[in-house]
Amino acid sequence: MNTFGRIFRVTTYGESHGPGLGSIVDGCPSGLELTREEIQSELNRRRPGKTCVETERKEPDRVEILSGIFEGRTLGTPISMLIRNADVDSSKYEALRDIPRPGHGDLTWREKFHWVDWRGGGRASGRETVARVAAGAVAKKLLRRFGIEVIAYSKEIAGIKTAEIEIEEVRRFRKIIDSSPVKTIDPRRGREMEKAILDAKNEKDSVGGVIEAIALGAPPGLGEPVFDKLDADLAKALMSIPAVKGIEIGRGFELAKMKGSEANDPFVMKNERIRTRTNNCGGILGGISNGMPIILRVVIKPTSSIGRKQGSVDLKRMEETSIEIEGRHDPCIVPRAVPVVEAMISLVLADHSLISGFIPRKL
Amino acid sequence: MNTFGRIFRVTTYGESHGPGLGSIVDGCPSGLELTREEIQSELNRRRPGKTCVETERKEPDRVEILSGIFEGRTLGTPISMLIRNADVDSSKYEALRDIPRPGHGDLTWREKFHWVDWRGGGRASGRETVARVAAGAVAKKLLRRFGIEVIAYSKEIAGIKTAEIEIEEVRRFRKIIDSSPVKTIDPRRGREMEKAILDAKNEKDSVGGVIEAIALGAPPGLGEPVFDKLDADLAKALMSIPAVKGIEIGRGFELAKMKGSEANDPFVMKNERIRTRTNNCGGILGGISNGMPIILRVVIKPTSSIGRKQGSVDLKRMEETSIEIEGRHDPCIVPRAVPVVEAMISLVLADHSLISGFIPRKL
Amino acid sequence: MNTFGRIFRVTTYGESHGPGLGSIVDGCPSGLELTREEIQSELNRRRPGKTCVETERKEPDRVEILSGIFEGRTLGTPISMLIRNADVDSSKYEALRDIPRPGHGDLTWREKFHWVDWRGGGRASGRETVARVAAGAVAKKLLRRFGIEVIAYSKEIAGIKTAEIEIEEVRRFRKIIDSSPVKTIDPRRGREMEKAILDAKNEKDSVGGVIEAIALGAPPGLGEPVFDKLDADLAKALMSIPAVKGIEIGRGFELAKMKGSEANDPFVMKNERIRTRTNNCGGILGGISNGMPIILRVVIKPTSSIGRKQGSVDLKRMEETSIEIEGRHDPCIVPRAVPVVEAMISLVLADHSLISGFIPRKL
Amino acid sequence: MNTFGRIFRVTTYGESHGPGLGSIVDGCPSGLELTREEIQSELNRRRPGKTCVETERKEPDRVEILSGIFEGRTLGTPISMLIRNADVDSSKYEALRDIPRPGHGDLTWREKFHWVDWRGGGRASGRETVARVAAGAVAKKLLRRFGIEVIAYSKEIAGIKTAEIEIEEVRRFRKIIDSSPVKTIDPRRGREMEKAILDAKNEKDSVGGVIEAIALGAPPGLGEPVFDKLDADLAKALMSIPAVKGIEIGRGFELAKMKGSEANDPFVMKNERIRTRTNNCGGILGGISNGMPIILRVVIKPTSSIGRKQGSVDLKRMEETSIEIEGRHDPCIVPRAVPVVEAMISLVLADHSLISGFIPRKL
Repeated sequence: MNTFGRIFRVTTYGESHGPGLGSIVDGCPSGLELTREEIQSELNRRRPGKTCVETERKEPDRVEILSGIFEGRTLGTPISMLIRNADVDSSKYEALRDIPRPGHGDLTWREKFHWVDWRGGGRASGRETVARVAAGAVAKKLLRRFGIEVIAYSKEIAGIKTAEIEIEEVRRFRKIIDSSPVKTIDPRRGREMEKAILDAKNEKDSVGGVIEAIALGAPPGLGEPVFDKLDADLAKALMSIPAVKGIEIGRGFELAKMKGSEANDPFVMKNERIRTRTNNCGGILGGISNGMPIILRVVIKPTSSIGRKQGSVDLKRMEETSIEIEGRHDPCIVPRAVPVVEAMISLVLADHSLISGFIPRKL
Repeated sequence: MNTFGRIFRVTTYGESHGPGLGSIVDGCPSGLELTREEIQSELNRRRPGKTCVETERKEPDRVEILSGIFEGRTLGTPISMLIRNADVDSSKYEALRDIPRPGHGDLTWREKFHWVDWRGGGRASGRETVARVAAGAVAKKLLRRFGIEVIAYSKEIAGIKTAEIEIEEVRRFRKIIDSSPVKTIDPRRGREMEKAILDAKNEKDSVGGVIEAIALGAPPGLGEPVFDKLDADLAKALMSIPAVKGIEIGRGFELAKMKGSEANDPFVMKNERIRTRTNNCGGILGGISNGMPIILRVVIKPTSSIGRKQGSVDLKRMEETSIEIEGRHDPCIVPRAVPVVEAMISLVLADHSLISGFIPRKL
Repeated sequence: MNTFGRIFRVTTYGESHGPGLGSIVDGCPSGLELTREEIQSELNRRRPGKTCVETERKEPDRVEILSGIFEGRTLGTPISMLIRNADVDSSKYEALRDIPRPGHGDLTWREKFHWVDWRGGGRASGRETVARVAAGAVAKKLLRRFGIEVIAYSKEIAGIKTAEIEIEEVRRFRKIIDSSPVKTIDPRRGREMEKAILDAKNEKDSVGGVIEAIALGAPPGLGEPVFDKLDADLAKALMSIPAVKGIEIGRGFELAKMKGSEANDPFVMKNERIRTRTNNCGGILGGISNGMPIILRVVIKPTSSIGRKQGSVDLKRMEETSIEIEGRHDPCIVPRAVPVVEAMISLVLADHSLISGFIPRKL
Repeated sequence: MNTFGRIFRVTTYGESHGPGLGSIVDGCPSGLELTREEIQSELNRRRPGKTCVETERKEPDRVEILSGIFEGRTLGTPISMLIRNADVDSSKYEALRDIPRPGHGDLTWREKFHWVDWRGGGRASGRETVARVAAGAVAKKLLRRFGIEVIAYSKEIAGIKTAEIEIEEVRRFRKIIDSSPVKTIDPRRGREMEKAILDAKNEKDSVGGVIEAIALGAPPGLGEPVFDKLDADLAKALMSIPAVKGIEIGRGFELAKMKGSEANDPFVMKNERIRTRTNNCGGILGGISNGMPIILRVVIKPTSSIGRKQGSVDLKRMEETSIEIEGRHDPCIVPRAVPVVEAMISLVLADHSLISGFIPRKL
């Protein structure tokens, strides 16, 4: 339920307006150099309140490490990371206590659990993802040690798309992405995206988009057919992120219109290794990585919390009503979802690297 | 690896040209009426060799039940189902022993396992899905008992799309789909699809498409946030099907271009129950079913095995070569994937129904 | 690895001399009334430093709840509990850094993980069980709500045994056990045990014993054959406690010498319910609870840390040496293991109650 | 429920009087040489009807391999093994349909599942263990390849005990054990045991005993603290065997009376490796193997099925009655449990060897 993975396992906890959120990473190999600052640095990438296109909630998101690291190296025991909540203002939510917000999990959580923390969405809040990013930071450090790197960026926001890039060159864009307020690779398009987001904000509305992610350096052989295929586990990991409603690998939905002769990636020899000429399969064949870059895309729906008047129901009176959500919401969560997507992919790759034996249990 | 689910659990085994394939369903509640014929009937829906658009391999796919059912009812113990292979002709594959087929798992399986059954794709063959359908038949029977039904159909083949249907009316199409050679809802479009498939076949090529699936009658409350969300588990289940390269829920990738005010489904009262006016979220909010129809789509890539000449490498000599695949391959596997999609969705819904307590452990 | 259970799941973390230890309980039904004080009260039962027979390390073991409870009731989300370490004195351990203590996990942990926290045994310390007791407190509260109670006591210490008790009457002993420094049911024998412990302490030695545990009120039907039998899961849970080296159920090892006609428990009718006349099977038949009291015993080996000179090796020089362990060690951990045994049994019963549907997912 | 293990995973199925029993081994590394005969040979060791002290049911127990092996080597895919039932005579059980046998799981299974296969105990029959032995045969072969061997024998039957042996010498007894009708190491004591069994049989009664098992060659480092400790997983595996009611490791329950200075095993240098002078801990410290022989004992209760008159209840009338069980039952199942104990230990060691990376995923 709140645990993910088989060998490299993550357990998260925490409500949006409770004392804090946290993440326990179990199964990380012992002997990995890891500092609090490295984890903090990933959290800073997700942290809001830095640009005009984001929520104004100030979340310092300072991480404290409670276990699992000793004298700068991992112990192989669970790494517990705690991020206390701050700048919490629950007052705006009282009005929403019995009026579920359309597009949110308010109602389904209530139907499932009956007793819910209605403040700020409780555990259904997007804030939950801060714990994923903390865990992902550990996975990223581990993967980097073995030459695997995951890079994501906003490929499309509000209908504005970036041009196709040379996948193997994506590392070059790392800095551009990190300095872009919308986390994209093309500064010009980025400014258009920013404008579209601010326009939506002014209309008390919101916009969505598409994130593309690329994993470089993954060895052949990751994935456990027939059910725990690499793409299957990636699909689960990504679909579990709030607001994600679709995922595709390689050419994805475009493949519906292609012929087999176009879609198949012919094998070629390159530097005495077998590669594929094209990479329509996105680096995964038969559920197993083939050594080519892994390419994925997810769609992020427009933020559910909007200021416009929407139809809802009053749960006490069981009658229709309307709702206008006040508060400090992101008019577009695509940029902030970028490090979350990276985190989830990193968790899956770390887990499969350990399961397959590519990464050993101790370093 | 070859087991799926937490309470309602499925384990499958078998190679394409080995003695047989099988499926063990563990955790099915005791006391469910279930006959061999009901399982056979689902297998017959998947069985090839019935129409001109399919492989000519004749697979009687007769299921034998080895355990778990006594005097017509399930015992709550594992239900073991065995389907022996027949009409196996491995001769055509000898030529491919050291030349991996582009688009197939031949090479990745070989890199992962070293020792592989090269005959007919071994366990990487699409034939593996017969065991999924057998397991799915048990799940379907159980779900039906509790008012849940899953219906899938070919929504698009070779670029030819069916019109949108009224989701709640999909039950009416059940018979049309089952009698359609391409498993679609629109006989006219179905004939166009057939033609496109035969054209591809004549060109020694193949085509892909999109399957849409709808689950009716699922109660609110299925799904275990934050990682085992209903949509996350569905994404994994579907992505584990061979040839699936993308999945979307509700409006899916279209949501990238929508505004929050369009995408959010307003709540309304209908017959004293809370419903949503639209269903852009596809019946799942916050990872939990909301009682509306669940709507999913998956993309099926064009069949990898094609007769056309393709570039490959000779693994013994480690040099480039070309390959022309002979044999009895489906020029389009979309229709045959329809019951597999239904099976996997049914497995997830059965599992979550048990986990959430909606379906009890004994009937 | 550090997670236990399937529906009611516990994840623990923490090193003995690190910042703190913690426990995350996932899968606890929503709506359960639960306060910090109830958890604190169980921790107080385990807390050392209260009597002369215990270590002098002062551990306030104050628990902080970080998530999962809102306005006095559980949310169905993970309940995170943090206990910070205090009164930590690592200085004594520096001498032991490269000399493993006989009977301890020092060497095996080092061989497994290479990089270890040598201070106070790190995660291999008995202190780890504080997190088990915190999680067990949640399970206990849940079970009590459904009429299930687990009571353990020291049945034997240093060869001094208590008399047999009428199992169904064990509830009457609850207060006596809690106020006994050695956690036993017989004050006179308790004093003998105390004396034996102090004698061992004076000799810089230690003693072990046997804990008996009884679960009352468990319904028939808990246990998932054939591998996840109730007794199998109990055996695992108890054997995972540090210092436990054996477990038996019902008459246990005595059964080796009994005849079938003596060992079998005849069925009788009692108040219109089926009971067994005797309870040699300890309340579990075929791996499933039968509604009678569940009876278990575990053996606790004498504390490994002793002041006497013992043979060891110097890991740097790889040569034999000797060791005398200073510090504040319990000369007998049997009394302090009593609440840990109760906690582990409660976790298993809570999990099986949820799996079998006896306890629902929401209250 | 019917699946065991994390990487090396076993799923079993089958009822005593149904079509057959089977075992699916998932996660066995690819490339292991393995023949049907090797598995058959282990099944023959468990097969009854060979000596006067056993049930007369003739079970040829011929195994058929349905998947996972190709040209004499494992594929890394699930190995499916089927053993069809033969010599089934259900007639004797009709009388017992509504009268549960004391000491059996008849009643608890019925209370749990409602719908049960009453013939021969259904899945609660000891016959279920045939599938464990088949799976264990695969594990044994794998372990042998890496120098690990598991040997069990009857240490005590009906109160008759064998003398202590030099543990490291146990390999020498392999042949004696296999040729002993009671699977023990001492022919003279073996004859006394046989006589005690036949005496019990003549009295329509049964006897129990103790099995000791030794694993040689296990490397240091197996076991995943804090919950999946090696001894914890062994305890679960062994307690899941029908009729096992207790387990101890090393000196086990004797440790209750020992002092720390006696119980601790001092470290010594031997051939430049660290060993322990004694082995009271049974080869496991802190839940992790230390490279010394692993020593375990389990108690097997006397066979529940006895011809003597016993008290039971008539479930239809809900009133007390008596029962005399006819049929071909083992008066002592200790000898036949010996290969089952070996199988379960082998499964745990194989799984932990893979988890820890000691055995790689492909050979």
